[in-house]
Amino acid sequence: MKPLFKALGVAAAVLAAKVAGAEEAVADTAAVSEAASVATQALHTVFEVQFALDTFYFLICGALVMWMAAGFAMLEAGLVRAKNTTEILTKNVALFAIASIMYMVCGYAIMYGGDIFLSGIMGSGVEEGFTYEAESTYAPASDFFFQVVFVATAMSIVSGAVAERMKLWAFLAFAVVMTGFIYPMEGSWTWGGESVFGLYNLEDLGFSDFAGSGIVHMAGAAAALAGVMLLGARKGKYGPNGEVRAIPGANLPLATLGTFILWMGWFGFNGGSVLATASAASANDVAVVFLNTNTAAAGGAIGALVLSRIIFGKADLTMLLNGALAGLVTITAGPDTPTPLLATLFGIAGGLLVVLSILALDKLKIDDPVGAISVHGTCGLLGLLLVPLTNDDATFFGQIAGALTIFVWVFVTSLIVWGVLKAVMGIRVSEEEEYQGVDLAECGQEAYPEFTTK
Amino acid sequence: MKPLFKALGVAAAVLAAKVAGAEEAVADTAAVSEAASVATQALHTVFEVQFALDTFYFLICGALVMWMAAGFAMLEAGLVRAKNTTEILTKNVALFAIASIMYMVCGYAIMYGGDIFLSGIMGSGVEEGFTYEAESTYAPASDFFFQVVFVATAMSIVSGAVAERMKLWAFLAFAVVMTGFIYPMEGSWTWGGESVFGLYNLEDLGFSDFAGSGIVHMAGAAAALAGVMLLGARKGKYGPNGEVRAIPGANLPLATLGTFILWMGWFGFNGGSVLATASAASANDVAVVFLNTNTAAAGGAIGALVLSRIIFGKADLTMLLNGALAGLVTITAGPDTPTPLLATLFGIAGGLLVVLSILALDKLKIDDPVGAISVHGTCGLLGLLLVPLTNDDATFFGQIAGALTIFVWVFVTSLIVWGVLKAVMGIRVSEEEEYQGVDLAECGQEAYPEFTTK
Amino acid sequence: MKPLFKALGVAAAVLAAKVAGAEEAVADTAAVSEAASVATQALHTVFEVQFALDTFYFLICGALVMWMAAGFAMLEAGLVRAKNTTEILTKNVALFAIASIMYMVCGYAIMYGGDIFLSGIMGSGVEEGFTYEAESTYAPASDFFFQVVFVATAMSIVSGAVAERMKLWAFLAFAVVMTGFIYPMEGSWTWGGESVFGLYNLEDLGFSDFAGSGIVHMAGAAAALAGVMLLGARKGKYGPNGEVRAIPGANLPLATLGTFILWMGWFGFNGGSVLATASAASANDVAVVFLNTNTAAAGGAIGALVLSRIIFGKADLTMLLNGALAGLVTITAGPDTPTPLLATLFGIAGGLLVVLSILALDKLKIDDPVGAISVHGTCGLLGLLLVPLTNDDATFFGQIAGALTIFVWVFVTSLIVWGVLKAVMGIRVSEEEEYQGVDLAECGQEAYPEFTTK
Repeated sequence: MKPLFKALGVAAAVLAAKVAGAEEAVADTAAVSEAASVATQALHTVFEVQFALDTFYFLICGALVMWMAAGFAMLEAGLVRAKNTTEILTKNVALFAIASIMYMVCGYAIMYGGDIFLSGIMGSGVEEGFTYEAESTYAPASDFFFQVVFVATAMSIVSGAVAERMKLWAFLAFAVVMTGFIYPMEGSWTWGGESVFGLYNLEDLGFSDFAGSGIVHMAGAAAALAGVMLLGARKGKYGPNGEVRAIPGANLPLATLGTFILWMGWFGFNGGSVLATASAASANDVAVVFLNTNTAAAGGAIGALVLSRIIFGKADLTMLLNGALAGLVTITAGPDTPTPLLATLFGIAGGLLVVLSILALDKLKIDDPVGAISVHGTCGLLGLLLVPLTNDDATFFGQIAGALTIFVWVFVTSLIVWGVLKAVMGIRVSEEEEYQGVDLAECGQEAYPEFTTK
Repeated sequence: MKPLFKALGVAAAVLAAKVAGAEEAVADTAAVSEAASVATQALHTVFEVQFALDTFYFLICGALVMWMAAGFAMLEAGLVRAKNTTEILTKNVALFAIASIMYMVCGYAIMYGGDIFLSGIMGSGVEEGFTYEAESTYAPASDFFFQVVFVATAMSIVSGAVAERMKLWAFLAFAVVMTGFIYPMEGSWTWGGESVFGLYNLEDLGFSDFAGSGIVHMAGAAAALAGVMLLGARKGKYGPNGEVRAIPGANLPLATLGTFILWMGWFGFNGGSVLATASAASANDVAVVFLNTNTAAAGGAIGALVLSRIIFGKADLTMLLNGALAGLVTITAGPDTPTPLLATLFGIAGGLLVVLSILALDKLKIDDPVGAISVHGTCGLLGLLLVPLTNDDATFFGQIAGALTIFVWVFVTSLIVWGVLKAVMGIRVSEEEEYQGVDLAECGQEAYPEFTTK
Repeated sequence: MKPLFKALGVAAAVLAAKVAGAEEAVADTAAVSEAASVATQALHTVFEVQFALDTFYFLICGALVMWMAAGFAMLEAGLVRAKNTTEILTKNVALFAIASIMYMVCGYAIMYGGDIFLSGIMGSGVEEGFTYEAESTYAPASDFFFQVVFVATAMSIVSGAVAERMKLWAFLAFAVVMTGFIYPMEGSWTWGGESVFGLYNLEDLGFSDFAGSGIVHMAGAAAALAGVMLLGARKGKYGPNGEVRAIPGANLPLATLGTFILWMGWFGFNGGSVLATASAASANDVAVVFLNTNTAAAGGAIGALVLSRIIFGKADLTMLLNGALAGLVTITAGPDTPTPLLATLFGIAGGLLVVLSILALDKLKIDDPVGAISVHGTCGLLGLLLVPLTNDDATFFGQIAGALTIFVWVFVTSLIVWGVLKAVMGIRVSEEEEYQGVDLAECGQEAYPEFTTK
């Protein structure tokens, strides 16, 4: 028995030793649960930080787009005559205010559905919007903020084209309908994903408009075109024998400042349209969008500068400015897919086209004092049509269908609204008021009471 | 014995098998410690990222508030006459510089205690401020940066109200005292949490001023009011029979630009006052603040536009601009708690009030060339009084106590300082200098040497 | 045997109990692997968020630096006469576009090596740039974006100094060479880390230029100086007996706005040059840089204001503006190491120096309409020389070697390029064109067609 006992004793000792090890392992259960708890805390916190970073990014991009309102105001104030400056400034501030309120009251709900007005947005929402799920990537209020400044951009485009002869209050009435209904409807068919009157779905057709060459810019231009056609040209713009008379803007530094503001704000406009930045892929995407946005603006500037030099024999500053903006509008439909070199070429194409478009519209006696219809309309269309070259999700058919849908909807509804306003209250100031300048008639204040000599 | 041995053998085998499993578990100890180490690294890193994001957010918001200095400069330069423009620009740049230096030299320490001047702020502080604890949420230098730009805002408010007749160097001397002592003292009683001369504690009384409707804006207006009262009205502003003569600003595009800059900068002013953004709750809060800030400005603009249309029969641009600013000031005391619709209504209330306040101050012959006392003082008070409607932490009693404390302190000390300056060096330029414009007298440079015709 | 069996039974029971515990431990293996997986996911995600935050920070800082282009445009447009304003605006927009394109085409590759043009930057790069390694801290496209706006800054400095008499297209031709070759070459020796023509390595010599007092600002000033020397002074600037005639700028609010824009954009210029913000140390660093940048600008403003008051007897606004910019340029070489008080003193030194430098250059009949050579050149050198006072990595020898290398390279190559342009196409407009203003000659558009009375 002795060997047996000895063997048992050894075995017990071995087992005891091993069990002691196991006991240590048992003690680790707490360590495991501690580690798991720390890991979970870390993961939840990093999800929170992603949510926070995406929200902050959205808000900063939104603030940059809000800043574009100042850009449009300065651009337009610089390109009209001194006597019509106070009124264009008034329009630009007031339209931004109207857009902010109308989009809150009904536009956002029309565009993206839900009773947003009554719940998410209308509650303070401080605790809402975040779960530890992938789906909630930013605060609901930040989404609203980013969207609302886009509406104002679309509306800002209109004010320049109808400058120097439209009645202020008719314009503001139009702004109410445009920002509360016309834009949100087309927005619901595009970014909202709804089918167009239940007939067809643009996304299914291969329509893609990253940040709104068509949805925002061409839409604004379509509304402007309808207004300009009902309004007619400024007195003296076109001579009796078809000659086009230049009406120089009163303050080119202001117009240049406006262009720089728009250029800067466009980083928020396009960069924010990635809709997320808190992952490696989205961060890279946002960076590419910033880079392409900048280089397309540069291309547009150079294209317009060179072409205007060839056509006019001079370096036309207003064409240079419109060229930069044209490059920006052109890249907006797809700033994420082209290489920077291609983005530059797209910008150059926009810069060349905008010069030709401005000249062509003048031939057609469509009087657009700031060139907004060419910059945002013609180049917005160009931008849409260029997307399928670098983005496989887009088709030419889809782009054309989308462009037509947006244009027809906005142009026709705008024509109706402008027409009703014309019948009800009139949309054009009197000849006398136009001659004296709309500033005195509409605002009772000169923009530069001590400067003007004419 | 055989069954026993057999049983023992089986038991040993079973134990051996189980122990082998336990051995695997033992082997996992390394995995546990590895997992724990990774989890801890992740948690520490995410804490670092929260610290970094909050710091970056603070810096960006601070940069936006710094940008408001440009807004005040442009707004005021646009609303004075051409002959007083260089001097108002000089004041605005110089006061920002003075505020930056005085707040570093003593203001920050007065307001928030500690020997900040000698340690945290004065050391380069690069490694300081972060621990793996919840309390340190941003870099100390970013806190200073965010606070210092607020001081400059308070001081910027003063410059507009005393424009067109105050001596430059008297103004700059006042700026030294205001930014180094008067503002930091009242700041210590409010955001600093100190009791007022050891008598009572405003927070305990239920005083709440989120981003400074009272602490910054009304304080600036109180200092301005004291200055204006000692200074008197501009020559020709009020006729012998009590008539109020409009003195139009020389450059309304500049005033409009200034308003847009302020509107944009206010996102940093209010949004940064959440003081954190790197958690889901704070991110949501910041987003709501951005949204409410924007919609209150929009409401203020519309309120003032409509009321000025009713009163004056015209769309008064300067009232529109002041209305937007009034909406911003009004919401500043509590942009986090109202729903957006309520924030809009608060803004509208501010926009209506500012028009009435400007008219009332003119009746009282308190000559404020840019309307700063009405925008920042009257609407600052309104903002304070509206807070208890949506914020249960605030009481009407506390708001009134806070408003009185701030106003009495700033007004009385300012009156003393302006009075001393008046006695020592004089605060008003000579009649001849006022007639010729302070630009030539104080700066020796015209702002627009080639433009002015009057 | 009974005691033995009993003992064995007890031992078995004890072992069984312990093994049961071990079994639980065995069961935890899944929990360990789960915890490890969560921890790894958390760590990988937080690395992604760091990558995303650093990228976003880079892009926002880059947008702020891009905004400086507007600052230079406004500053220069405000400081030239009305008749030369359109052309300076045209130059500023066009040079930014040229810089954006040339740096993409070849500058970035010259400066930082690699076939960047053909791969990283030219591919859309959306998936590129991030690995779970420490080395990849931001998206490649964001690095390019941040770098490209610096090139434009260097070039913007040139345009002001040669204003009012240089041919537009000669200037733009120079911009192509400067942004595509001259600047990238010296950039490769400094930030690029390459040895200078294989002869010596600046970093090894103890050269340190944090954000580019020398690399960007003095480089721009050197190119400007070469141009100004070949170009000669404006007609009427210097009298026959050596008297210096002041040629006042047409629009000081614009110049002030430009200064504020530059001040704001400089937060991106210096703050972004930390190159990371997503860790506690880098976040603290960025915050210190923001704070020191602001306080140096404040010091520069006060220094120049007081000195100009002493010298001229008036508060010279243009000196005040140049003083703020001088403070900014001075701190740019090392905004991370001084205490804020020291940064203020460095700024004051810059503000004093710039006034003296402007007066000295006029004595030397080096005609620089906006003071750019003094602000960016003289104070850029000062900034370099101050670095070793607070940064142990820098030596005076290294700073002098770096300053000489940059200056000699940029000055000599620029002189050659300007010389070739002078020979080939001429760099100066005709006397008649200069008298009438370059706006009509070069751009065919007046900047203020309704305002100017002279």
